[in-house]
Amino acid sequence: MRPDDLILVSVDDHLVEPPGLFEGRLPAAMADRAPRVVHQDDGTDVWVFGDQEIPNIGLNAVAGRPPEEYGVDPTSFDDLRVGTYDVDARVRDMDANGVLGSMCFPSFPQFCGQVFSKADEPALGLAVLQAYNDWHVEDWCGSHPGRFIPLGVLPLWDPELMAAEVRRLAAKGCHAVTFSENPEKLGFPSFHDTDHWGPFWTACSDEGTIVCLHIGSSSEVVITSLSAPITTMITLQPVNLLQAASDLVWSRVVRDYPVKFALSEGGIGWVPYFLERADYVYRNHRTWTGTDLGDKLPSDLFREKFVTCFIDDKVGIGLRDQIGVDLICWEADYPHSDSTWPESPERLAEALADVGEDDV
Amino acid sequence: MRPDDLILVSVDDHLVEPPGLFEGRLPAAMADRAPRVVHQDDGTDVWVFGDQEIPNIGLNAVAGRPPEEYGVDPTSFDDLRVGTYDVDARVRDMDANGVLGSMCFPSFPQFCGQVFSKADEPALGLAVLQAYNDWHVEDWCGSHPGRFIPLGVLPLWDPELMAAEVRRLAAKGCHAVTFSENPEKLGFPSFHDTDHWGPFWTACSDEGTIVCLHIGSSSEVVITSLSAPITTMITLQPVNLLQAASDLVWSRVVRDYPVKFALSEGGIGWVPYFLERADYVYRNHRTWTGTDLGDKLPSDLFREKFVTCFIDDKVGIGLRDQIGVDLICWEADYPHSDSTWPESPERLAEALADVGEDDV
Repeated sequence: MRPDDLILVSVDDHLVEPPGLFEGRLPAAMADRAPRVVHQDDGTDVWVFGDQEIPNIGLNAVAGRPPEEYGVDPTSFDDLRVGTYDVDARVRDMDANGVLGSMCFPSFPQFCGQVFSKADEPALGLAVLQAYNDWHVEDWCGSHPGRFIPLGVLPLWDPELMAAEVRRLAAKGCHAVTFSENPEKLGFPSFHDTDHWGPFWTACSDEGTIVCLHIGSSSEVVITSLSAPITTMITLQPVNLLQAASDLVWSRVVRDYPVKFALSEGGIGWVPYFLERADYVYRNHRTWTGTDLGDKLPSDLFREKFVTCFIDDKVGIGLRDQIGVDLICWEADYPHSDSTWPESPERLAEALADVGEDDV
Repeated sequence: MRPDDLILVSVDDHLVEPPGLFEGRLPAAMADRAPRVVHQDDGTDVWVFGDQEIPNIGLNAVAGRPPEEYGVDPTSFDDLRVGTYDVDARVRDMDANGVLGSMCFPSFPQFCGQVFSKADEPALGLAVLQAYNDWHVEDWCGSHPGRFIPLGVLPLWDPELMAAEVRRLAAKGCHAVTFSENPEKLGFPSFHDTDHWGPFWTACSDEGTIVCLHIGSSSEVVITSLSAPITTMITLQPVNLLQAASDLVWSRVVRDYPVKFALSEGGIGWVPYFLERADYVYRNHRTWTGTDLGDKLPSDLFREKFVTCFIDDKVGIGLRDQIGVDLICWEADYPHSDSTWPESPERLAEALADVGEDDV
């Protein structure tokens, strides 16, 4: 497999919202309360929405920088690579990396749009969120047909509104939404409250909309101690989704609804171990815990209802038959610090050296 | 490999302390304050130590029961298999399972003896703890020479006392101690406070004593939500040690001391993924985080300083070359609910069917 032969589709990239995003997209009565970019005295730019102030974190947009310049300091648009927020420049960066298609998660609204759920009033939150989705589908994705997979954000505070937005987005051709890998951490009911989330699962099932769970979309990361080096936290980031998978594989939603989940930025090398563990737990503990998956094992449910993705994961590629090749997607994670941009084709070709063309 | 050819040594089993453990082992002035077994009106037995009351949990001692009878209810000695608390019966149970040697973790003192650190006064805690260790080395292990690997508990509240106990145990032939996989969760400094734990690491380095970190030895388990089924928690138990490994591999202790760590009941199938991830983090984030491992990668440090173990982990066995065969131990986990007793040889022989004799 030569690098130039690879046609790459990335299911996890990130866009930085450009300042003018909401202009002309909100009713006049709400326009002055839309999120806006404010340039700070210290030279950084922040998004302001009500009393929420969200900085651009440099580490989140380091594509093109040498690793020596990575850091967690807030930054300004002037210091960001243009491809992070300008869609034409983004497409050129995708071209440079051999990437045909890309699905982009939000930045300032956070991974599942949780910032919109903290609006001063729900009506404002919903209007802003719909404006955001319209911009995402029409402007970001729509300006370059065939180059983006649209991804919607949802009004997390009301499952009926979520269902309506899933259907509104589907009518626009958007069949992916971002949700929290652990909604309880955001103050909402857990995955195990099927009654609460039922309207959302129903809408996704009806519309064939996939639910994408990005690491950190509970606004929490896996840490061991506040005194641990940040490398401990970075190493453990994908564990966030190992936990979400362990939650969902035992939940009613994967048994009762045809909805599919994507584990975004979760890696794949841990999947065979996890599936063996879950099946072991089922065999040993099903009786006394009253767990009945019918004629299925947890691993069957996982393979039916989940898709995974990896950035650069040779261990996982070697285990692809134990995962299920059709469950494995790829991601560039542009412009975040774990991205392989602009060397994704070269890195992938090396990792895929021993893999047959059908699997590739 | 036939089941009868396997000579099994289990590095993670559990003993239930027999009622008379402390008799004649404490100074007269302290004898009436030793932990004691109290039979409750509801028919269960509990250990009482000061104002701490620790029940026997049925799920922790289910060896020989059908899975339908597993459960988390408290229980009594009469309802426990005799091999859980009587060492002669234990050796017969080991014989029945083809197990030559066994290392046994504590039950009522909890996995790293944290109950003793909550004594009414430190002198009492230390006296009780030393009595426990003496009983463990002399009575439990000493009664059947060659059949047990002794394992000491330590006075967690004082690293100088810990060091002294490590040396006292080593003089008795005990070169393994149990410690917490996350001491901060027990109210002590984290692994990253090298000054604090230095005397302990020095003593273990001097004596060639291995530090065993058992899942749950921080008195915490990995959970997603209190509303999640208990199967989610059981599935995630080994993640406890994936977190500990992510903590330690970036800590000074693995760089500065020759001390070795055992990840007890952590499984092995996740190790190659973890090592690839840690190395990836090092390559991408070493500069801006100021991390300098010299000429080593995190995976090198792991392979030098850790040993792992598995119960029944075909995925991990298949990955043994990516882990390092010499890092892999086996455990029976008798009498806990994940144990393969009394079919360990048959289960292992099946799992090892494709593995060469040298690796076995």
